[in-house]
Amino acid sequence: MTTPLRLGIAGLGTVGVGVVKIIRQKANLLADRTGRPVVITAVSARTRDRDRGVSLAGYDWEGDPVALARRDDVDVFVELMGGHDGAALEATQAALDAGKDVVTANKALLAHRGQALAERAEAAGRTIRFEGAVAGGIPIMKALTEGLAGNEITRVMGVMNGTCNYILTRMQDSGLPYETVFQEASDLGYLEADPTLDVGGIDAGHKLALLSTVAFGTRVDFDAVELEGIERISIEDIRQASDLGYRIKLLGVAQMTGRGLEQRMSPCLVPKSSPLGQLKGGTNMVVIEGDAVEQIVLRGPGAGEGPTASAVMGDVCDLARGCRVPTFGQPASELTQARVAQSNSPAPFYLRMALLDRPGALAKIATVLGEAGISIDRMRQTRHDSSAAPVLIVTHRTQRSALDAAIAAMQETGVLASDPVALRIETA
Amino acid sequence: MTTPLRLGIAGLGTVGVGVVKIIRQKANLLADRTGRPVVITAVSARTRDRDRGVSLAGYDWEGDPVALARRDDVDVFVELMGGHDGAALEATQAALDAGKDVVTANKALLAHRGQALAERAEAAGRTIRFEGAVAGGIPIMKALTEGLAGNEITRVMGVMNGTCNYILTRMQDSGLPYETVFQEASDLGYLEADPTLDVGGIDAGHKLALLSTVAFGTRVDFDAVELEGIERISIEDIRQASDLGYRIKLLGVAQMTGRGLEQRMSPCLVPKSSPLGQLKGGTNMVVIEGDAVEQIVLRGPGAGEGPTASAVMGDVCDLARGCRVPTFGQPASELTQARVAQSNSPAPFYLRMALLDRPGALAKIATVLGEAGISIDRMRQTRHDSSAAPVLIVTHRTQRSALDAAIAAMQETGVLASDPVALRIETA
Repeated sequence: MTTPLRLGIAGLGTVGVGVVKIIRQKANLLADRTGRPVVITAVSARTRDRDRGVSLAGYDWEGDPVALARRDDVDVFVELMGGHDGAALEATQAALDAGKDVVTANKALLAHRGQALAERAEAAGRTIRFEGAVAGGIPIMKALTEGLAGNEITRVMGVMNGTCNYILTRMQDSGLPYETVFQEASDLGYLEADPTLDVGGIDAGHKLALLSTVAFGTRVDFDAVELEGIERISIEDIRQASDLGYRIKLLGVAQMTGRGLEQRMSPCLVPKSSPLGQLKGGTNMVVIEGDAVEQIVLRGPGAGEGPTASAVMGDVCDLARGCRVPTFGQPASELTQARVAQSNSPAPFYLRMALLDRPGALAKIATVLGEAGISIDRMRQTRHDSSAAPVLIVTHRTQRSALDAAIAAMQETGVLASDPVALRIETA
Repeated sequence: MTTPLRLGIAGLGTVGVGVVKIIRQKANLLADRTGRPVVITAVSARTRDRDRGVSLAGYDWEGDPVALARRDDVDVFVELMGGHDGAALEATQAALDAGKDVVTANKALLAHRGQALAERAEAAGRTIRFEGAVAGGIPIMKALTEGLAGNEITRVMGVMNGTCNYILTRMQDSGLPYETVFQEASDLGYLEADPTLDVGGIDAGHKLALLSTVAFGTRVDFDAVELEGIERISIEDIRQASDLGYRIKLLGVAQMTGRGLEQRMSPCLVPKSSPLGQLKGGTNMVVIEGDAVEQIVLRGPGAGEGPTASAVMGDVCDLARGCRVPTFGQPASELTQARVAQSNSPAPFYLRMALLDRPGALAKIATVLGEAGISIDRMRQTRHDSSAAPVLIVTHRTQRSALDAAIAAMQETGVLASDPVALRIETA
């Protein structure tokens, strides 16, 4: 089989350039490994004349990604533009309708349009591969879809947004407040154009929704992901968590329960010495639990030119070798609509609040918790100069619903100086 | 595609039984994921009448695995017998010659016969898949061969023998000597029939040789793996290493250097707080470094019914889906014979010895090291009651060859009460 596999690449940002570099620099290696040449026919990007640090000589230029997607001399459409509608969506649809396979690193597109696109791919006898969309260089989709295909998956969890982890790690290491570190991350170009995608947990939520689909054979349901960002994490939370032996991580958990599928992405406390607690900067980690394999943990860079291009090339090489796994690991028509379960499995919680400096304030809070059936593991009021007293409470295991009810009752007491911060403590 | 994929399974030990259980319990899940039924046609094992905790109803029984391998109603021969010659080899050859794909968890077979078998598979247009042979449930071969196919791999390292790691962890936790813990492991059934395979590092060496082949595109060269077992690790080494901030692990490292391919499997000191240092009991960990992906770390159970059966089923599902990657990730005929490089990259070393209790003994040792150009980072002589004084030395970075020369010179001085233990310290 020496017919070349011909790619059309739309999007020449960081990842697109990384892919072009690998194909130019490793033609022989790729041909040895896949049994055929992997070549680029044509490329497309918003601006043509720009030094990207790599030659585009020999590739046709297409101004319109849809035209690129439809070219007869393209076998695989590589979508690296981003965005969940507009050009990325149209070009992907055009490619599938024209009978091309699609490789993409676009988590937003699949989180929002995954089911319809997977059905469209199936109708055309093609597939969409998206290793680069989840956890950067970690071959996590392949591990789940293929390596662990003999398992019933019970839980998937992980830290999957490098920017949030950078911000949290940097706050920990430097003692600088959230706002300062956020600005640093922005200056370093780590943030999306709309930073809420990162710090609001949306980007990580997209990834979790895709992992859930493949893990549980359910339709992508991003809207059901309970999302909480890191915007309210203060340097005080970082310090208090550290004193208690924890680190704060933006952690995603998806698990199938008797009540349905739980999906949540939220800042949690994890033990300092645990693998998740030791995760630094832009590194991602994903934990998979299956009935046969028990537990597998994968760690690696969550973003960047090389790592994401590596993931995209893994997909390209599979297609070059003739391996065409369905988009979400099984026929799109057979994916089920999961019942949505509120994430309510019991856990200890970290609760930080500021109380008005009045006699009996702390007693009122303690009473509210007692009446809600929530027992206190540790409580600490620290010395203060202002009119509000910082109070920290670690609860014993309780349900989030009980805690939320207690917080509402606390707000009724009139002793809170601001809204409490409540973070789940994940120990396993 | 609803033609079933028909398996013939030879070997019904722990792993074989695990595979049968998955196929019996998850028929629908497997059919959904692979698009076709996965069925067992016939099985074979040494003894027929034995309660294995799983029903074999509906499967033909073959007394002879070679006959099983040749059956017309078998598409994939699943070899779970073990051993690097005899029945396992003959049946595998017979299966390939009869045009079947082979799935195996037999590291010894492939470490010794891999090249010839891969060529035989290629001649028949078939493949041998062996995920279950390396690092148990971790989908490491898939990650390397497929997920990271766009990378030039620079280094692979890992802890890949759960039994050795169990022994070392247990010595650390209990303070019991090697001999006692070895006996415990034996009583628990953790050791191979020939325990040297485990504690001599041979089993882990087999795995390293297979990883090297796929990582570097070189022919399997198990004979070139520098092997050192854990038999000489005493409880004193465990304690001293711990005092210094390290744990002792049987660590395999394969890397391509300017001088050729280095492959070594030896007990090393790794920092306590590092991911390798924190590895407990039967858990395996593999680290892959590639030019695009930077570094990926995979962790999971290294053995056992469920995890190894999970790996075998990953291979079976790939074949059911029609994905047939060449045995070692590229055509066997294109694998190159790597130049063998002695493992000599500089590192600090841990050196423990017993000196005869004579004036000037320590000075002689220090002089020998100085003359060899090896500088001492730390040295410690502990209080003792016997006629031999325990001495511990941590060197600055040096080459193993220089250290070996110095040890030979030490032996000339006549002050050594026994052979020194020298262990590499791996910090990265």
